[in-house]
Amino acid sequence: VIEAQRLWDTILETAQIGGTPKGGICRLTLTDVDKQVRDWFKRQCEALGCTVTVDAVGNMFALRPGKRNDIDPIGIGSHLDTQPTGGKFDGVLGVLGGLEVLRTLNDAGYETNAPLLLINWTNEEGSRFAPAMLGSGVHAGVFDQEYADSRLDRQGIRFADAIETISYRGNVEAGSTKLGALFELHIEQGPILEAEGKKIGVVTGVQGMRWYEVNLTGQEAHTGSTPMDLRRNALLGAARVIEQVDNIAHKHPPGVGTVGLLELTPNSRNVIPGHVFFAIDFRHPEDSALARMEENLFPAIDRIAAELGLQADIKKVWDSPAVRFDASCIAAVRAGAVKSGLETRDIVSGAGHDAAYIARVAPSTMIFVPCAGGLSHNEAESTALEECAAGTQVLLNAILEYDQQ
Amino acid sequence: VIEAQRLWDTILETAQIGGTPKGGICRLTLTDVDKQVRDWFKRQCEALGCTVTVDAVGNMFALRPGKRNDIDPIGIGSHLDTQPTGGKFDGVLGVLGGLEVLRTLNDAGYETNAPLLLINWTNEEGSRFAPAMLGSGVHAGVFDQEYADSRLDRQGIRFADAIETISYRGNVEAGSTKLGALFELHIEQGPILEAEGKKIGVVTGVQGMRWYEVNLTGQEAHTGSTPMDLRRNALLGAARVIEQVDNIAHKHPPGVGTVGLLELTPNSRNVIPGHVFFAIDFRHPEDSALARMEENLFPAIDRIAAELGLQADIKKVWDSPAVRFDASCIAAVRAGAVKSGLETRDIVSGAGHDAAYIARVAPSTMIFVPCAGGLSHNEAESTALEECAAGTQVLLNAILEYDQQ
Ligand SMILES: NC(=O)NCCC(=O)O
Ligand SMILES: NC(=O)NCCC(=O)O
Repeated sequence: VIEAQRLWDTILETAQIGGTPKGGICRLTLTDVDKQVRDWFKRQCEALGCTVTVDAVGNMFALRPGKRNDIDPIGIGSHLDTQPTGGKFDGVLGVLGGLEVLRTLNDAGYETNAPLLLINWTNEEGSRFAPAMLGSGVHAGVFDQEYADSRLDRQGIRFADAIETISYRGNVEAGSTKLGALFELHIEQGPILEAEGKKIGVVTGVQGMRWYEVNLTGQEAHTGSTPMDLRRNALLGAARVIEQVDNIAHKHPPGVGTVGLLELTPNSRNVIPGHVFFAIDFRHPEDSALARMEENLFPAIDRIAAELGLQADIKKVWDSPAVRFDASCIAAVRAGAVKSGLETRDIVSGAGHDAAYIARVAPSTMIFVPCAGGLSHNEAESTALEECAAGTQVLLNAILEYDQQ
Repeated sequence: VIEAQRLWDTILETAQIGGTPKGGICRLTLTDVDKQVRDWFKRQCEALGCTVTVDAVGNMFALRPGKRNDIDPIGIGSHLDTQPTGGKFDGVLGVLGGLEVLRTLNDAGYETNAPLLLINWTNEEGSRFAPAMLGSGVHAGVFDQEYADSRLDRQGIRFADAIETISYRGNVEAGSTKLGALFELHIEQGPILEAEGKKIGVVTGVQGMRWYEVNLTGQEAHTGSTPMDLRRNALLGAARVIEQVDNIAHKHPPGVGTVGLLELTPNSRNVIPGHVFFAIDFRHPEDSALARMEENLFPAIDRIAAELGLQADIKKVWDSPAVRFDASCIAAVRAGAVKSGLETRDIVSGAGHDAAYIARVAPSTMIFVPCAGGLSHNEAESTALEECAAGTQVLLNAILEYDQQ
C-alpha cells in the first residue's frame, strides 16, 4: 500500500520549484526551474538505487531492475513541466505517483519480474515550444531529433539551445530506450469524473487534436485620420476568425476550438494593427469530424481576409490523430481499481498526453483522477490528497497486475 | 526663402536616431534614442544662438530673442517622439521645419518683433505612456505634473522614473513658459490633401477623441478537456467587443473606432484565455456624436460579458474634446500660403496634436502637408522634399505675417 502522506508531501515539496503566489506552478520546459526539478528528480531516483539516463531530447529514465532483465521494462511516467499559469498536479502527479510506487516497492523489498522505468518526458505542455508531447513524440518516432531541435519559443530561442543551456542534452539516442508498456497517471483536467462521483477514470483513448498558426497582414495606419473604409485592420480579422473558431466547434459536438495565443504588431493604442499572429487549437474524438472542422476553418479565414483586404497565411503545425489504448493495459488498470474497491468510469481524454504517442511503440494506457471543477491549466487546479493516493494505488496495482501476465 | 535641401538633410540625419531597417523610426518617448535626439536638438538650437530650457515634464524650449522682449514669444513646434513603427515625418517635420525657419532667419539676419520659441513637446504619441499629447497637456493645464509623473508604460515603468533616467526633468515649472501663439507644421496623416491635389491644409480644428481601457476576466482552463458550454473565454469576449467597436464607428460617420493594443493572459496555445486587457480609441469631429458612440459602447461590452460569463471593467482614460483653432492664426497661415502661390484646403485634423491642447492657453493653429496614400503610424510614411519645403515656407510666412500684426 502506498503512503498517501509521503506522496502529498512530495507534491507540495516540488510545487515550490517554480511556485506562484496564487498556489500554482510556472515551470516552462527547459527553463532554470525545470532544471531544478529535474536535478531534484534525479537525486530522488538515485536515492532509491535507480540508474538515471537522459536522452538527446532531455527525456529522463530511472531504471529499477527486475528479476528478469532480459525483458523490456514497464514504463511509468508523465511530465514535470507546466503551463505559465499551471497547477500543481497536471503531469506532476504521474511522475511523483510513479516515484511513490518505487518507494513503496523498495520499502516492501518487492522485486518485479520486469524492470520498471520511471520517466519524465520533456516539453509535454507545448506552451514554450509547440507542439505538445514533443519529448514522447520523438521517442515514438513521430518527430525526429532535428525537428525537435529546430523548435522556437516566442522569444526565438531554439529548443537545441535551451536544452544545452540547462545541460539536459543526454547522451542516449532518443527513441532507443525500449519500453514493454507504459502506464500514465494523470488528473482528468475535465469535469466528468467529479460530476459522476467516480474516483478513477479508465482511459480508453485520447481525442484527435490539430494546431494551426495564422498570420494576418493588413496595413498599419493612424487610428484617428484613417477613414473606416480605407482600413486593413488585421486585429479585426483575427476577431472574426476567433468567432468562427468558436462557431465551428459548437457545430461539431463534442469538438472544441480555441485561440489561446495571439500577438499583434505594433500593439499601440493609436495604430491600426498591421499584423496579427495567433494559434488555433481544434480537437474532436473522431478524426473524420476533426477533418470537417478544418474544412470549415480554411475557407472561413480566406473569406474574412478577403472581406478586410488582409493577406492570410495558415499553417497546420500539429496533427495528432485520435488514439485507442491497449486492451491488456486497460484490463490491468480495471483489475487494479477493483482490487482497491474503487468505482471506475471509462473515459476518452480531451487533453493530449505522452501516453498517446507512446501507444504507437508500446502497449499503453492511463489512469485519471478527478480535479475540482474540472479545472486545469489554471493555478487553482486542485485534486485532494485521497484522490491522488487512490490514483497512485491503482497505478501500483495495475503495474503489479501487468507484471504478473 | 527656406533652404529645402538643408531641411531634407536634417530630416534624414535625425531619422538615423532610432531608425528602423524598413526606413521608419522607433523612438518612443523618454527612451535612450529619445535622449539622443533631444541632445542633438539642443546642440542645433544653441548653435543658432538660442537659449534652451527644459520644463519638469521634459518639454524643450529654444528661445530666439526678438526686437520686443516684453511680449510673449510666438511658438513653433511639434514632437520628436515616434510610434514603435513610426515614420520619418510625424511630429519630426514640425520641429525640424521650425529649426529650418530659425536657420533661415539667422542667415538673413532678420529680427522678428516677438521672440520666437521652438518647442519639442514630450510624449505626443501616447504610445509608451497614455494618454497622447501629455507634455503639451500639462503645459496647457489639462493634466497636472503629478498625473504625468504617475503614468505607467506597459512594462510598469513610471513616467517620473523614465524622465529621470534620461536626465530630461528640467528645472522650469511645467506651464510657466508663456506663449503668444503657436504654429505647428505636421503631415496630414490622412488621404484628403493627396486625393484633392492640394499642397497645404489650413487646419481649422481637431476632432474629439476618447480612449478607454477594458479588462475582461474569465477563467483559464484547458482547451482540450473543457467542454464548449463550460468556458469563460476572455479572448472570445474581446473579439466580440472589437467587432462592436468597428460596428459603432461605421454607424456614426465620419467617426472612427479602433482597438490597437491588446494583451492576453496567459497567452498559451492550449489555455483558454482567462484575462484580456485592451484599449479602445474612438474619435468624431462632433463631441455629441462621440458621446453617442460611447453610449453604444458601454452596454455592448456589458452584454458581451454577460453572454460569456465574463467580468468586465471599463475605464475612460482620455477625453479630448473637439477643438477649433484661432481665427487670426488661421488667417496668417492662409496669407502665408497665398504669398507662396500655394493652393490650400481647409481641413479638420483626425489625429491629435500638441496644438490642440495649446489652443486652450494661446492662439494656435496648424499647417498640414500631404503624405503618400494618407499613410502614417507606419514605417513607410512618406512626404516628398518639395512638400516638406512648401509646408516649412508657409510656416515661415505665417509667422512673419502674425509677427507684423
Ligand atoms: N495534459 C496536458 O495538459 N497536455 C498538454 C497538451 C494538450 O493537451 O494541449
Ligand atoms: N499626430 C499624432 O499621430 N498624434 C498621436 C496622437 C493621436 O492622434 O493618436
